[in-house]
Amino acid sequence: MDLTWLAFAVGALAMFIVAYLAWSVNKEPVGSPEMAEIAGYIEEGARTFIKTQYKTISIFIALMFFPLVIFFSDLRIPASFVFGASLSLLAAYIGLRIAVKANVRTSNAAATSSAKAFTIAFRGGAVVGLSVVGLSIIGVSLLFWLYRDPTLMVGFGFGASLAALFAQLGGGIFTKGADIGADLVGKVEQRIPEDDPRNPAVIADLVGDNVGDCAGRGSDLFESISDDYITAMILSSLLMGSLGISALMFPLMLGASGIIGTILGVFAVRGWKKIKPIGSFNIGLLVTAATCALGAFLSSTILLGDISMFYAVLSGLVASLAVGLAVQYYIGLNSRPVRRIAEAAERGPALSILTGLSYAFQSPIVPFVSVLASILFSYYVTNGSLYGVVAANLGTDLAIGMIMSSDAFGPICDNAAGIAEMAKVRTSEGGILEELDATGNTTKAYTKAFASASGTVSAVMIFITYGELVQLYSVGHGLLSPIIIVGLLLGCALPFLFSSLAIGATGNTAYRMVDEVRRQFKENPGIIEGKVKPDYARCVDIGTKNALREMIAPGLLAVVSPIIVGLVFGKFALGGMLLGGLGTSALLSPTFTFGGGMWDNAKKYVERNFWMKGTPTHAAAVIGDTVGDPLKDVAGPSLNIFMKLTNMTALLIIPLLMLT
Amino acid sequence: MDLTWLAFAVGALAMFIVAYLAWSVNKEPVGSPEMAEIAGYIEEGARTFIKTQYKTISIFIALMFFPLVIFFSDLRIPASFVFGASLSLLAAYIGLRIAVKANVRTSNAAATSSAKAFTIAFRGGAVVGLSVVGLSIIGVSLLFWLYRDPTLMVGFGFGASLAALFAQLGGGIFTKGADIGADLVGKVEQRIPEDDPRNPAVIADLVGDNVGDCAGRGSDLFESISDDYITAMILSSLLMGSLGISALMFPLMLGASGIIGTILGVFAVRGWKKIKPIGSFNIGLLVTAATCALGAFLSSTILLGDISMFYAVLSGLVASLAVGLAVQYYIGLNSRPVRRIAEAAERGPALSILTGLSYAFQSPIVPFVSVLASILFSYYVTNGSLYGVVAANLGTDLAIGMIMSSDAFGPICDNAAGIAEMAKVRTSEGGILEELDATGNTTKAYTKAFASASGTVSAVMIFITYGELVQLYSVGHGLLSPIIIVGLLLGCALPFLFSSLAIGATGNTAYRMVDEVRRQFKENPGIIEGKVKPDYARCVDIGTKNALREMIAPGLLAVVSPIIVGLVFGKFALGGMLLGGLGTSALLSPTFTFGGGMWDNAKKYVERNFWMKGTPTHAAAVIGDTVGDPLKDVAGPSLNIFMKLTNMTALLIIPLLMLT
Repeated sequence: MDLTWLAFAVGALAMFIVAYLAWSVNKEPVGSPEMAEIAGYIEEGARTFIKTQYKTISIFIALMFFPLVIFFSDLRIPASFVFGASLSLLAAYIGLRIAVKANVRTSNAAATSSAKAFTIAFRGGAVVGLSVVGLSIIGVSLLFWLYRDPTLMVGFGFGASLAALFAQLGGGIFTKGADIGADLVGKVEQRIPEDDPRNPAVIADLVGDNVGDCAGRGSDLFESISDDYITAMILSSLLMGSLGISALMFPLMLGASGIIGTILGVFAVRGWKKIKPIGSFNIGLLVTAATCALGAFLSSTILLGDISMFYAVLSGLVASLAVGLAVQYYIGLNSRPVRRIAEAAERGPALSILTGLSYAFQSPIVPFVSVLASILFSYYVTNGSLYGVVAANLGTDLAIGMIMSSDAFGPICDNAAGIAEMAKVRTSEGGILEELDATGNTTKAYTKAFASASGTVSAVMIFITYGELVQLYSVGHGLLSPIIIVGLLLGCALPFLFSSLAIGATGNTAYRMVDEVRRQFKENPGIIEGKVKPDYARCVDIGTKNALREMIAPGLLAVVSPIIVGLVFGKFALGGMLLGGLGTSALLSPTFTFGGGMWDNAKKYVERNFWMKGTPTHAAAVIGDTVGDPLKDVAGPSLNIFMKLTNMTALLIIPLLMLT
Repeated sequence: MDLTWLAFAVGALAMFIVAYLAWSVNKEPVGSPEMAEIAGYIEEGARTFIKTQYKTISIFIALMFFPLVIFFSDLRIPASFVFGASLSLLAAYIGLRIAVKANVRTSNAAATSSAKAFTIAFRGGAVVGLSVVGLSIIGVSLLFWLYRDPTLMVGFGFGASLAALFAQLGGGIFTKGADIGADLVGKVEQRIPEDDPRNPAVIADLVGDNVGDCAGRGSDLFESISDDYITAMILSSLLMGSLGISALMFPLMLGASGIIGTILGVFAVRGWKKIKPIGSFNIGLLVTAATCALGAFLSSTILLGDISMFYAVLSGLVASLAVGLAVQYYIGLNSRPVRRIAEAAERGPALSILTGLSYAFQSPIVPFVSVLASILFSYYVTNGSLYGVVAANLGTDLAIGMIMSSDAFGPICDNAAGIAEMAKVRTSEGGILEELDATGNTTKAYTKAFASASGTVSAVMIFITYGELVQLYSVGHGLLSPIIIVGLLLGCALPFLFSSLAIGATGNTAYRMVDEVRRQFKENPGIIEGKVKPDYARCVDIGTKNALREMIAPGLLAVVSPIIVGLVFGKFALGGMLLGGLGTSALLSPTFTFGGGMWDNAKKYVERNFWMKGTPTHAAAVIGDTVGDPLKDVAGPSLNIFMKLTNMTALLIIPLLMLT
């Protein structure tokens, strides 16, 4: 049964819904001229950043394209590389475009109806979520229709991963550089509030929410799902070859049911009366999960004729949703860890940071173990079939569209609150935008944890694909081979180096932002008096230039290290490296994102419960929050992409390694 | 050639030198009655702590002993376990005894001669270094003489590791809890100087140097070298069985030449004129290295008849010494990272901590890669023999005695400076004790990095021994087996959980110390006026009780997790777990110790170069230092033991695993 057309059709349907949702958001009024002006600054800044960023990424794509053409006699591989990178950038671009429209419309709607504000913000998010899953399945099914061979499609995943890493790194460095710069000079030195229009870095900060959280995470999940389709299809033909094309259709049909589930879920989420926003999300997620489960049941029994694969898929889905429990436990606004970090702040920043570190280092355990349990369960329930692990991995992807929708909702609400603050909008219900913002923070934290858990299984999958293709099990001494051990330990070390570069890059950008904001306040005293508009564009410009320069070193590390290790020490050492690298990435990433999230909410807890702005306790909490910023929004999320990209690079260069 | 007697004789010689050195230190005068009184407090506190600690550890040993007796029909295994644990505790006890004698004698000698002060402090250190290597080889050779079978000696290594973990954890939590408590209330709140006799926690802080740095590290290196002897002997019979007893003698003869090299090196170190203390150490290290190289050459050619093994040993020795270069680059007092962290402190604690984190995460790379290079080199130079890796591992141990001597020198000088400050001793040359203290900080940092590098290879070795004994290479799908992958990823997670527990434990102890010091100052205003002596003993008591309670959870994790994983998921999953666990431990440990060292020296850099005590920059630097304390002195060093102990536990329970 060749159902490629069905996969494509479902993808096209998703894009049709995207267009409808975007139209329904855009037709809403923008509000006062003042709001339109502020929104214009943000849109302008985002456009400047994305233009320069895409130019830089294009250069890298071009630089990678030519060696690929020379090396692969088959032009279809480099072509799929460019196609994958372009679709990833397109998904991010669509997300960014809608986010900068939905933000101001959400602020305006909040003046009359909180339900309306919620619906606009969520529909903006859904545009991002559906674009990601829609474009991914369109790209993969189109390529399969053209190539008929999944091994030729590795370039697509590689391109998507490469673009994602640069998008996430550049966006992350930009947003946190601006955020720290705005906070350290504005809030701490000048003692003006958050989102005050007198702060020269305020627009850069708001732009950052869009380019970092929205566009960055969108390309992350685009690559995650695309890599999964491709590796699952390769393993379908390697492991389930006897089923022919049906096995190859299994990943695509699961993806299609995920999309249909997401579409139904999206329409189930709205500003229901008497239900809190987070409750609305949960209803949507339930609708999605139920639809996906049905699709998974049908796909497993019809295409594979094996009900046990359905259990495997289900275990992946459950594991990915269970991550939310850990997020609630650690990052929830009144959670025990957040309270203890806030209380430690009463004894100064050092003990607050230490308490946070202690919780951060344990936080990956629960999500990690639930993912590992799902891998092991799928292996056993399918009678020791590696394909069971493939099914579990596809299960972790089913809800991606829905989760991405609730993620992109976050920065839209964050922006909406900022615009309302700057334009002094009075909302119909006090604190509605703050509540949406806080909800957005929770969904963002959940998405990062989800992306990490789902990314871990994806990386395991790519590693297994690599291992099957190079016959990793044939190495002498097996796991005891010093070549494997050294490769593996080296792999463990790379995410540490990557984290160092990512944290350092953000620090450097924040330095320059601090200097620029200080300069503007000093040279033009009218700014702080509110008589003169600060030079917002210059801050955006400085952030853009620094972020794009600083993203290069960590970005290259992900591509260059597998190539060097593979060519110098061989395919077995590289195999070890991939496994080690994914091990430490998969742990450092949630350590960073959970840690940062806890410090962030501890600061909010101090502000809400102790009401002590300006006191040493509040200062201690702000310090913790600032330390956590680059961890949770730069190093953490990009490590997630790093682990998949190193694996995809290895997969791509296999033909080269087989020559040696 | 059975040379067991020779190994024993060299060990006995080492202990004879230990007795001589201890005598030569003890015969020096104590100084004024005031100094004797302060030294008495420290000795008393250390004795209280060690007595309670040894009682707690004995309970654990007893609890482990009975199951071992029931499980192993051969009583020789539980007997060797008790023997290993006892010798480890004895080595630590000897170290502690001499340290509390040498400290005050060093202060007193500093009043007349800096060379004399240096010699006393170093000889005190050498007592520790030589006890560690001497007792280890005595224990191992004695057991081999009795048992004639190295697999029966695993209990010795396991006992040594278990005792070491508790010694390091308990000592570390105690010393850093006291240190942070003394600093936060004394220095920050009351603004009294470091080591001020009015601070109720000052004695606890000085006691901590002895029990944490001296006794803790001593038992760490004792287990490292003991584990290496035993696993090397097991692998000698597995891999080089054709050589008979000669191969079994190889590890012992290398150890013996390391001891002879250390003895010569110790006598080459003294207060040479025109040579700085650190230069003196380097002379000693060179003498040791040259002697060891000769011994390694003879052992390789005579016992194994294979010159390539000599190259492998040499590569291990070189790799372990090269670690010093990384320490110099990162932690040196005027190094670029230290300067940049200090400069970042001018922009507040958050950027200072972020800059430190960025450097911390990259710092393991150089030592780690040099160790990996040595493993790979030894494997290739010996024509793909696993025994080459064994030889390299033994090479990393050769200088342990000498390095441990310079390490124990650190806390002795630290104490000496504290006693001089409290008793207001005037030294012959201004700042001599401060210079010795600074030198001691560098040698301590070096030893921690060395212990981590050498421990990594040891852990690899224990893992290979385990793998050979359970035939890890026979697992289905090899490295692609989901059982191996899940085990490995779970293993990667354990050191994160362990770090969380260790950091949290220190934080909790510091909390209670803060409360106690605050209470004493509040309830008795005479203390701060200098009229009343504070209640030092109560602080020691609180530190002791908390440290010993808090050490239990992380300590159990190391023993319980391999047993559970092995029994529930089998020997292959456990194999994966061991490898993953050593991978992340080997990286987190140097990340923590380097990071903490850099923040510590950045604080000193600020104090020396900016002269800004009481300014926000200095406060920011102190915050960084405090954050680093539990990382560098609790989590980092104990992770090092953690990775060996999990492996030794696995080795011990192999007979149990083979039943399933």
